[in-house]
Amino acid sequence: MSPQQRTLHLNAFLMSTGHHEASWRLPESNPRASTDIRHYQNLAQIAERGTFDSIFFADSPVIFGDVGRRPAGKLEPTVLLTAIAAATEKIGLIATASTTYNDPFNLARRFASVDFVSGGRAGWNVVTTAGPEAARNFGIDDQPAHAARYERAAEFLEVAAKLWDSWEDDAVLADKEGGIWADSAKVRPINHVGKHFRVRGPLNVPRSPQGHPLIVQAGSSENGKGLAARYAEAVFTAQQTLEDAQAFYADLKARTVELGRTAESLKILPGIVPVIAPTQAEALRLERELDELIRPEYARAELANTLRVDPEDLPLDRQLPADLPDEDSIEGAKSRYTLIVELARREKLTVRQLIGRLGGGRGHLTFAGTPEQVADAIQLWFENGAADGFNIMPAVLPSGLETFVDQVVPVLRQRGLFRSEYTGSTLREHYGLERPANRFSAVGSLASAGA
Amino acid sequence: MSPQQRTLHLNAFLMSTGHHEASWRLPESNPRASTDIRHYQNLAQIAERGTFDSIFFADSPVIFGDVGRRPAGKLEPTVLLTAIAAATEKIGLIATASTTYNDPFNLARRFASVDFVSGGRAGWNVVTTAGPEAARNFGIDDQPAHAARYERAAEFLEVAAKLWDSWEDDAVLADKEGGIWADSAKVRPINHVGKHFRVRGPLNVPRSPQGHPLIVQAGSSENGKGLAARYAEAVFTAQQTLEDAQAFYADLKARTVELGRTAESLKILPGIVPVIAPTQAEALRLERELDELIRPEYARAELANTLRVDPEDLPLDRQLPADLPDEDSIEGAKSRYTLIVELARREKLTVRQLIGRLGGGRGHLTFAGTPEQVADAIQLWFENGAADGFNIMPAVLPSGLETFVDQVVPVLRQRGLFRSEYTGSTLREHYGLERPANRFSAVGSLASAGA
Ligand SMILES: Cc1cc2nc3c(=O)[nH]c(=O)nc-3n(C[C@H](O)[C@H](O)[C@H](O)COP(=O)(O)O)c2cc1C
Ligand SMILES: Cc1cc2nc3c(=O)[nH]c(=O)nc-3n(C[C@H](O)[C@H](O)[C@H](O)COP(=O)(O)O)c2cc1C
Repeated sequence: MSPQQRTLHLNAFLMSTGHHEASWRLPESNPRASTDIRHYQNLAQIAERGTFDSIFFADSPVIFGDVGRRPAGKLEPTVLLTAIAAATEKIGLIATASTTYNDPFNLARRFASVDFVSGGRAGWNVVTTAGPEAARNFGIDDQPAHAARYERAAEFLEVAAKLWDSWEDDAVLADKEGGIWADSAKVRPINHVGKHFRVRGPLNVPRSPQGHPLIVQAGSSENGKGLAARYAEAVFTAQQTLEDAQAFYADLKARTVELGRTAESLKILPGIVPVIAPTQAEALRLERELDELIRPEYARAELANTLRVDPEDLPLDRQLPADLPDEDSIEGAKSRYTLIVELARREKLTVRQLIGRLGGGRGHLTFAGTPEQVADAIQLWFENGAADGFNIMPAVLPSGLETFVDQVVPVLRQRGLFRSEYTGSTLREHYGLERPANRFSAVGSLASAGA
Repeated sequence: MSPQQRTLHLNAFLMSTGHHEASWRLPESNPRASTDIRHYQNLAQIAERGTFDSIFFADSPVIFGDVGRRPAGKLEPTVLLTAIAAATEKIGLIATASTTYNDPFNLARRFASVDFVSGGRAGWNVVTTAGPEAARNFGIDDQPAHAARYERAAEFLEVAAKLWDSWEDDAVLADKEGGIWADSAKVRPINHVGKHFRVRGPLNVPRSPQGHPLIVQAGSSENGKGLAARYAEAVFTAQQTLEDAQAFYADLKARTVELGRTAESLKILPGIVPVIAPTQAEALRLERELDELIRPEYARAELANTLRVDPEDLPLDRQLPADLPDEDSIEGAKSRYTLIVELARREKLTVRQLIGRLGGGRGHLTFAGTPEQVADAIQLWFENGAADGFNIMPAVLPSGLETFVDQVVPVLRQRGLFRSEYTGSTLREHYGLERPANRFSAVGSLASAGA
C-alpha cells in the first residue's frame, strides 16, 4: 500500500459482551465482563493486533433503563483506558466524557494525564449527555436544554484548549545547576472569563505528548455538527443508508472548510455492526438467533423512553404512532431520535421489528455477510464520499472483534485500503493528523493569552 | 512474628524526585520524573518489595508557588494509580481528591473503578483543599470558609457511601437462561437530598471489591479530627515531637470510640522523612547537603503564602514576626499553620533555619540516622501510643525508598514489628480492617435507603 494513498481509519467501539443487547446471554459470553479489566485488556490487544487506529468507550453518568435487561454499570472510561494503556503499546484510547456534568479544570487535567501515561494515545469523545436521568445525579431536576448544553460544550472546549496550552512545550528547563526547574514565563494563567466558566489556570500538568488529546465528537444534530466542524478531529456517527451517510459527510466537511480548516483535518467514521460468517445465510442466521434472545418488554421500555412516549402506546405488532413530536421539540439526543423515527417509517417496521433492528446496533448500520461482503460494504462507503473509516461495533465480544481482525482486516489490507503495521505511535499520527501548535507560544506574551 | 501481635503499617508517600524540595537538583534525580509513569511504577515496585501496606499521592487542583522552584504539575492521582495498579500486585493505592472541587457522583464512581481495576486496592485521601488559588480554577474567587469546606466534606462522604452501597454485593445475577442480568430490587436509587448535594443514584458501577475504597484523612484541625473520627480508616498527620504525637493519637482515638467505633478501626500514621546513612554523621551531612540546594527566595515566598504575610516581612536571619494571626482566623490549612508557627517559636528558628526544616519535610518529622536509629525512632513512637504505623516520606526518590526497604525494613521485620510477606490482597486487609457491610442490605427495602 502506497504511503500517499488515502487509507481507512478503524476504531473498535467496545462494550462489555458486545453491541447486541442480548450478547451477554450467549454461552460464550462472560456476563460479568463489564467490570473485568482483563476482558478489556484482551479486547484492546486483539484490536491492536488488527492495527486499529483506536478503541473507544461510550459513557453516561447514569444507569439507563432496567438493570435486569443487560450488563449495566461501567468502569469510568479514563480509568479503564489507563489500565488498558498498560497492556498495549500503540493503539489509540478514546474515552467519552460529558461537558454537562464535569468541570473543565479537572477533566482537562485527567485527559492530559492519560495522554502522558499512554505515551500520546489519548482521545476524548466530547458529549453533552442527553436525558433528564443523568441530571438528577448532579443536583438538577432536568437536563439543560439541547442548545444550552451545546453552548456550554463549546465554552468547555475553549477552556480546556487554553489549559492544555497553558504550558509551552519547552517550559520545563530542568536546570539543576541554576536551580530553575521551569521557565515561569512559559507557564501562564489563562484567566478565562465566560458565560459558563471562570478559570484562572495554568493547568497543573505540563503540555502532554500530543499537545492535547484527540477531540472526537458524536452528536449529529445541527448543534452537534456545528461543534464538530469547529473542534472535532474525528466524528462518530450513526447512518443507515449510503445516501444519508454521503449527505452527512458532505455537509460536515463543508462546514469544517467554511471555518477555515481543511477537509482532511476531520475524519468521519460511521458505525457498522458486522455480523460475519463463512456464508451470508449463516451470518443472517446468527443475527436472527441473537435477536431472538432480546426480551421485548425491556427493549420497548427503552424505546418509549427515547421517543418520550408511554410504553403502552407502543403495541409490539403495530407501527409507531403517527403523532410523534418532531426533532425540534426533543431536548435529548436529537439526531438519534430522528434516525429511529425515519428508519421505522421508511421501512414500515412494527415496534417489534424496530426493536430487533435497534437491539443489534442501537441505530447503527448492521451488516450480516461474509468477510468479503463486509469489506465490500466498507469499501463502497469509503470510496463514495460517505466515510473516512469506520467505527466497528462487534455484536458479540470478544468473538466478533476476533473474526473481524482475522478475516476482514486481511482483506482490507490486501486491497491496499488499510495499514499492515503502525507507522506512528500517537493516536493523532494514526489518524494522519498534525500535532496542534500551542496557541500561546507564537505570541509569547501573557497579554494575548485570552485570544 | 506472631499473627496476634500488633504490627506496623507503612505507607510510602511518593512525590516525583522526593520530599526534599531540592531533591530534583541532585545528579541522580530525573527532573522530569513528575510526568514519567515508569518512574512511579518503579517506585511502587520497590515499596511492594518492602511489603508496604500502600503508596500514596498528595494532590491539589492548582499549581502552588513558582514553577521555577521545583517539579510542578502532577499526573491526576486516580489515573496515576491505575497505571501503577497494572505494574503491581498487592500494594494498596491511595489517591488524594478534594471534596471542595469535585462532585460526589463522578468521584465515587472513579474510586470504585480504581478499586475494580486494582482488585480491591484503592484508597481515597479525603481533603478539603486549602487556599484561594485552587478556588480560582473553579469559578470562585476565594475558598469557602474552613468550617464550610468540612461541612461539605462530611455530606460528600455520606453521599459517596450511599452510592457505593446502592448496589448490593449480590445484585448481579447473570441469569442467561432467564434473561435477567441483575436483580433490580438490589440496585437502588439513593435519593439523597442535603444542604450541599441532591443525588438520585444508583451509582453506575456495581459495588467494588472492597465494598468501597479505604477512607483516609489528613487534616489535623478540630474539624479535621471530627471528620476523621467519623469516617476515616487511616489518618496521615504531621507531628514534630513524641509528646505532640501521643496527644494527637489519644485525642483522635477517643473521639473515634466516642462515636461508637473501635479504636482499632482507625489507624494513625504520622509522617517521617528518614535520611539514612551507615553512620549518623554521614546522614547529617547528607541532610545538610540537600538543604544547601534550597533556593531561599522561593522557599520564603511559599512560607509567606502559608503564613498569609508579605515575603518582605520575613527577613531571612530573623525569627518569625511576633504578631502572626492565630489559627482561628486561618481559613486555609489550620493544623499545618499552627505546626509551623509552634516549631519556629519552640526552637527559636530564624526564617532561614525554618525554611531548611520545612524544605525537608514541609512540617513532617525529619530524622537523619543509621538504619537502626531510624528503626528505633519508629519503634519508640509505635510502642508508646503515638502511632499505628508511619507515612514514610523519602527525601530523595528512588534512592531514599530503596535504602529504607533494603536497610530499615529488614530491621523492623527482625524485631517482629513488620510483615515479611503480604497475607491479604486488598488494601483493607493490609491495614487489618474489615470489609464494610452494605448499609442497605440488611433492611432490604427502598424506603429506608435514605437512612
Ligand atoms: C458512535 C456514537 C457514540 C456515542 N457515544 C455517546 C456516549 O458515549 N455518550 C453520550 O452521551 N452520547 C453518545 N453519543 C450520542 C451523541 O453524542 C448524543 O446524541 C448527544 O447527546 C447529542 O447528540 P445530538 O447532537 O444528536 O442531539 C454517541 C453517538 C455515536 C454516533
Ligand atoms: C501526610 C499528609 C498529606 C496531606 N496531603 C494533602 C493533599 O494531598 N492535599 C491537600 O489538600 N491537603 C493535604 N494534607 C493537608 C490537610 O489535608 C490540609 O491541612 C487540609 O486542607 C486542612 O487541614 P486542617 O484540618 O489542618 O485545616 C495532607 C496532610 C498530611 C499530614
